[in-house]
Amino acid sequence: MSQTPLAAALLEPATVAIVGASDDPRKTTGRPQRFLAQAGYRGTAWFVNPRRDTVQGEKAYPSLSALPGVPDHVYVMTGADAAVDAVAEAARLGVPVVTVLSSGFAEEGAEGLAREDRLRAAAAQGPTRVVGPSSLGVVNPRNGVMLTGNAAFGEPDTPRGGIFVASQSGSVIGALVSRARGRGIGFAGLVSTGGEADLSLGEICTATLDDPEITSYALFLESLRHSGHLAEFAAAAHRAGKPVAVYKLGRSEEAAALTVSHTGALAGEDTEADAFFRACGFARVSTFEGLAEGPALLERIPAGSGPRTPRVGVVTTTGGGAAIMVDQLALRGVSVRAPSHELVDRMAAAGASVPHSLISDLGLAGARHDVVTAALRELQDSGEYDLIVFVIGSSARLNPELAVQALADRGGHAVPVVGFALPDAPDAAALLAASGVPAFRTPETCADAVAAAFARRTATIDPERIGACPSDEPVLIDEQASAEVLTAVGVPVLPSVALKIASLDDVDLPFGFPVVVKALSDQLAHKTDVGGVVLNVGDADGVREAARRIVADVAHRAGVTVDRVLVQPMAEPGVGEVLVGFRRSHDVGPVVVLSTGGVQAELYDDVAVRLAPVDRETALEMIDEVRGLLVLKGHRGAPAGDVTALADAVVAMSDLAHELDVVEAEANPVLVRRSGAVALDALVRQVTDRSVTA
Amino acid sequence: MSQTPLAAALLEPATVAIVGASDDPRKTTGRPQRFLAQAGYRGTAWFVNPRRDTVQGEKAYPSLSALPGVPDHVYVMTGADAAVDAVAEAARLGVPVVTVLSSGFAEEGAEGLAREDRLRAAAAQGPTRVVGPSSLGVVNPRNGVMLTGNAAFGEPDTPRGGIFVASQSGSVIGALVSRARGRGIGFAGLVSTGGEADLSLGEICTATLDDPEITSYALFLESLRHSGHLAEFAAAAHRAGKPVAVYKLGRSEEAAALTVSHTGALAGEDTEADAFFRACGFARVSTFEGLAEGPALLERIPAGSGPRTPRVGVVTTTGGGAAIMVDQLALRGVSVRAPSHELVDRMAAAGASVPHSLISDLGLAGARHDVVTAALRELQDSGEYDLIVFVIGSSARLNPELAVQALADRGGHAVPVVGFALPDAPDAAALLAASGVPAFRTPETCADAVAAAFARRTATIDPERIGACPSDEPVLIDEQASAEVLTAVGVPVLPSVALKIASLDDVDLPFGFPVVVKALSDQLAHKTDVGGVVLNVGDADGVREAARRIVADVAHRAGVTVDRVLVQPMAEPGVGEVLVGFRRSHDVGPVVVLSTGGVQAELYDDVAVRLAPVDRETALEMIDEVRGLLVLKGHRGAPAGDVTALADAVVAMSDLAHELDVVEAEANPVLVRRSGAVALDALVRQVTDRSVTA
Repeated sequence: MSQTPLAAALLEPATVAIVGASDDPRKTTGRPQRFLAQAGYRGTAWFVNPRRDTVQGEKAYPSLSALPGVPDHVYVMTGADAAVDAVAEAARLGVPVVTVLSSGFAEEGAEGLAREDRLRAAAAQGPTRVVGPSSLGVVNPRNGVMLTGNAAFGEPDTPRGGIFVASQSGSVIGALVSRARGRGIGFAGLVSTGGEADLSLGEICTATLDDPEITSYALFLESLRHSGHLAEFAAAAHRAGKPVAVYKLGRSEEAAALTVSHTGALAGEDTEADAFFRACGFARVSTFEGLAEGPALLERIPAGSGPRTPRVGVVTTTGGGAAIMVDQLALRGVSVRAPSHELVDRMAAAGASVPHSLISDLGLAGARHDVVTAALRELQDSGEYDLIVFVIGSSARLNPELAVQALADRGGHAVPVVGFALPDAPDAAALLAASGVPAFRTPETCADAVAAAFARRTATIDPERIGACPSDEPVLIDEQASAEVLTAVGVPVLPSVALKIASLDDVDLPFGFPVVVKALSDQLAHKTDVGGVVLNVGDADGVREAARRIVADVAHRAGVTVDRVLVQPMAEPGVGEVLVGFRRSHDVGPVVVLSTGGVQAELYDDVAVRLAPVDRETALEMIDEVRGLLVLKGHRGAPAGDVTALADAVVAMSDLAHELDVVEAEANPVLVRRSGAVALDALVRQVTDRSVTA
Repeated sequence: MSQTPLAAALLEPATVAIVGASDDPRKTTGRPQRFLAQAGYRGTAWFVNPRRDTVQGEKAYPSLSALPGVPDHVYVMTGADAAVDAVAEAARLGVPVVTVLSSGFAEEGAEGLAREDRLRAAAAQGPTRVVGPSSLGVVNPRNGVMLTGNAAFGEPDTPRGGIFVASQSGSVIGALVSRARGRGIGFAGLVSTGGEADLSLGEICTATLDDPEITSYALFLESLRHSGHLAEFAAAAHRAGKPVAVYKLGRSEEAAALTVSHTGALAGEDTEADAFFRACGFARVSTFEGLAEGPALLERIPAGSGPRTPRVGVVTTTGGGAAIMVDQLALRGVSVRAPSHELVDRMAAAGASVPHSLISDLGLAGARHDVVTAALRELQDSGEYDLIVFVIGSSARLNPELAVQALADRGGHAVPVVGFALPDAPDAAALLAASGVPAFRTPETCADAVAAAFARRTATIDPERIGACPSDEPVLIDEQASAEVLTAVGVPVLPSVALKIASLDDVDLPFGFPVVVKALSDQLAHKTDVGGVVLNVGDADGVREAARRIVADVAHRAGVTVDRVLVQPMAEPGVGEVLVGFRRSHDVGPVVVLSTGGVQAELYDDVAVRLAPVDRETALEMIDEVRGLLVLKGHRGAPAGDVTALADAVVAMSDLAHELDVVEAEANPVLVRRSGAVALDALVRQVTDRSVTA
């Protein structure tokens, strides 16, 4: 292990101390002592308990200061106030890392928040970094470091391997170990990050990146916190070539409609998280066991740089099992490919006969080592596939030396193979894992991991850009000013003229009739709802009449006094209308949003979100992602829209990331024509002074 | 066991014979002999092999006729032609059931189909019913009947229990047993139904319904075959009060657009299967392990008769694990409910303190038997819940005598409890199962089973109605005739007048202008695409002009000669436009279809399908199901549409089920107004003579 000083103290402490150690090995506070002994920790362990002389047969010290030396890593298991005192003492002594189990901090209101401030301040008095509070601990199965109160680690022989787990939930680390056990999946470290009062999950992971035995990361997130640190970790993990799987809660949460425009409601927290993970190059899994089983696959599938249809082949000894896999893959957007006729012929010549079909079904012969070897070799060598999924029948459980061993033997090929056994077959999984072949327990998890691996993108995250959200409350500016902001970054907006209500006698327009007349006010985010828009006005008299109606209606329905109107040419219908938005998110920084306009995007949650700015390729990928925008592609014989022009508008909108006073912007609708795309309306919210710095 | 004669021969044969038995116990054809001995089958087993005197140490007979008696159940493991001969011999002897492993039948083209016909004919010469061909066999773990070549049954002690498994895939039965093993889930029988040349899956299940030890069914379907038999089974299972879980492949398949109207494409095979299962009262699970773990829950949740929001509570010892569960439930449409403030107070008074929150988190105290008991008792007695999900942390694996035992002890209450352990905890699952408490291995499977259980409806299927699909090719009738068909069953259609192109001098309409002019022809399913519709025509001259244009355009673009036009009043815009369709499906009989009109339904797969006819309550449920129809509910302050009138139109359309000559019908769009709903267009395909009988 070669690590940063922080990682060394975290995962390889030569000396540890347990503060609040109990004499009772069954108590949470008695467990670390028992676990350290059981796991064969070879460093020095000290125990602090001011009320006893010994704990579990070892000397108990009254305080950290009374120890014979300065420990590298202290685990504090006392009450909350005593924990603050212990951290202060550790800081005075120069302890590099303190992990705090105690609860009673930010989660407990104002008093807890104040206590957490004191905890941070205490640590800052010295070189001390804090994991927690509410951390169920730090475990390194490689060297017996078991600084944890998690009962799950009472089982001996925590499986060792290359995965580093960082989890905002403490119970998850124990659960992952139990689910990995016996299946050949192992861990190079597990950290319950707790309240992240000091060290965030991202910082902890970054600190461990130099450890050569850590080959991949599995993150369990309850919410996106300290995303700047996560972004830094992502960028560094990308440089280190170490893949990251993430399971995040909140897929189901309906985003609170916090902001004025649709963009705000559409780019809800979880959608933003998806955009963030994509920019980070993380693979987001949707099944819990995908977090344990997915990393092995990620180590075999390099992150892609753009939209790509993976070429996945399915070979099997059980037609029914393979059909389940095809179904589960397709449900996650991964289409299985049939082998070419030539390939089927080559397989037959090599002794592996399969039908000309989507699934290469070896039938009963698939339980033979030589047949499976021949089939896999031909499939892998064919150049037709990026991944081969082998669905194994009963032999996986009863005779792993046959098909499973053949699969294991093919794991070194450039085209990766993975195994899913239809029966429960832990020994097969372990055999495969030992050969570097990813194995999956359920068809759902296998399909989830495959889809997540191929959806993973090369990390493009710029950590500098996260969190540049202004603290001032932004204000709405009127449509004319909004249009100027959008035009300045290159979003095409239909021309318009502002007219004062007081001087409408002379209506002189630089464009012809018919026109649209709209209320012009920085008090109105949604004009149509309050009678603020009149369409299809044919002449100057009509403009005056429309303006009168607008003034009256808006005063009546919104209580807003309008003294100007905006006049625009009436646009011919285009191929489609879309919403292009921009938002500066507290969690992930600037994002650009694309959806169909109107109510459809909400009803179907049909939105593409990316961290801003984006390039044209990404904008085109976003257009592909919004199902409702299929109409722009000339769906069912209809004329196609100018997708390139729309992509350019998305790129331009995303460049608002550089305009630090703009907090939110929306062009809705953007009219996509057969040639060109133009915004018919514009809405911008900004902070009044340029007080923001990236 | 008390059974039908068929079930007795299938599952309780006093004598069995293996035709094609091998001397090699490792061969597929040698396995049944070994498995029967290992499982302690107490009946008489005979072995037929004309080329040997003994097999595996037992006497080998040259033929079925040479046996000392007539076996109750014969398993044929020979080649295909020999299998036909064996079935013929069995029929002559009066063998009640023959299960055929042999392949080489319908799946192998014309020759195989002819062989399958011979197989059926041979069986029909006697009382013999055939399971298979291509059946991996029949297993009854209760009495050691192991008529199977599936290697998975080489393991001793197939777990016994109340689930009867019928599977179109042979490998699935072994896989389910392996996944159930050690978790307290057991089986009363497992049948691989194979090619269903004679006995269909539905018939086999129906035959077993009188068996009191069978408490639930788990069906694995590759496709909907013999749905009439499945419907009969469903109706009988409903009467017997035995729940049915089904996993069906094909959720992902894009339905082939086989028919002229949108209705055909929208009501694809899998959507129809969903409607069919709903009418059958089956619970369709989406996870593979849900098929093994789901039935125990179905036995506790009675099927509902209408739309209902289940009241699900989550109590836990691990906040992170419970949050995963809440997320997974919500993703499947099940919202978790917080306990009331009063209930939280009562729990605290009973010694189970939880925060006022969505999740009742007992924290570390949740590992105590008394605390869990108190919490569950208060939650179950509160009247606030239909189901309690207990998410158990590390104690489930390490100390099942604590929280898990407390959960097991509460399994008898009228409000069911289920367990999900965050760690891998097979012993906990077995302990729970032994107390009748459903337990789940993954959060995904738990949420899947809970959602499927509450989505299950009381069986309403009428087996008589399945399969009444006319064999004649239906023909399109023109819009006027179509409108008459719809009007006759009570679907409101906008009035119209047909005018001959040859006599347009006199345009005398029973309604005012403006009007719509449409080509009237039985050659045009989609008029708009070929210039067959002119909107907003203001006077009689306009009608003549429109008719001329239509004749020219349709001739040019569709090559169809139009000699009549249909004139309709121009309808004012309504609140929304929808598609209401009807179709007579080969698989499931008549169905009614509801979706938003146009391209949106296809893009978002936003369609509700039910077996027809339906009542108004079901029609309202369909309207609720189509997300795009939220606009009819006065979404975001817009005016609401007349949902009741739309429901009545759906009911009327569904009554076409009784018009046996109508194969397909569509009203698209149906204009839903603030008051009323009316079809603007009609399309019907029917067979020309009333040759169909239900």
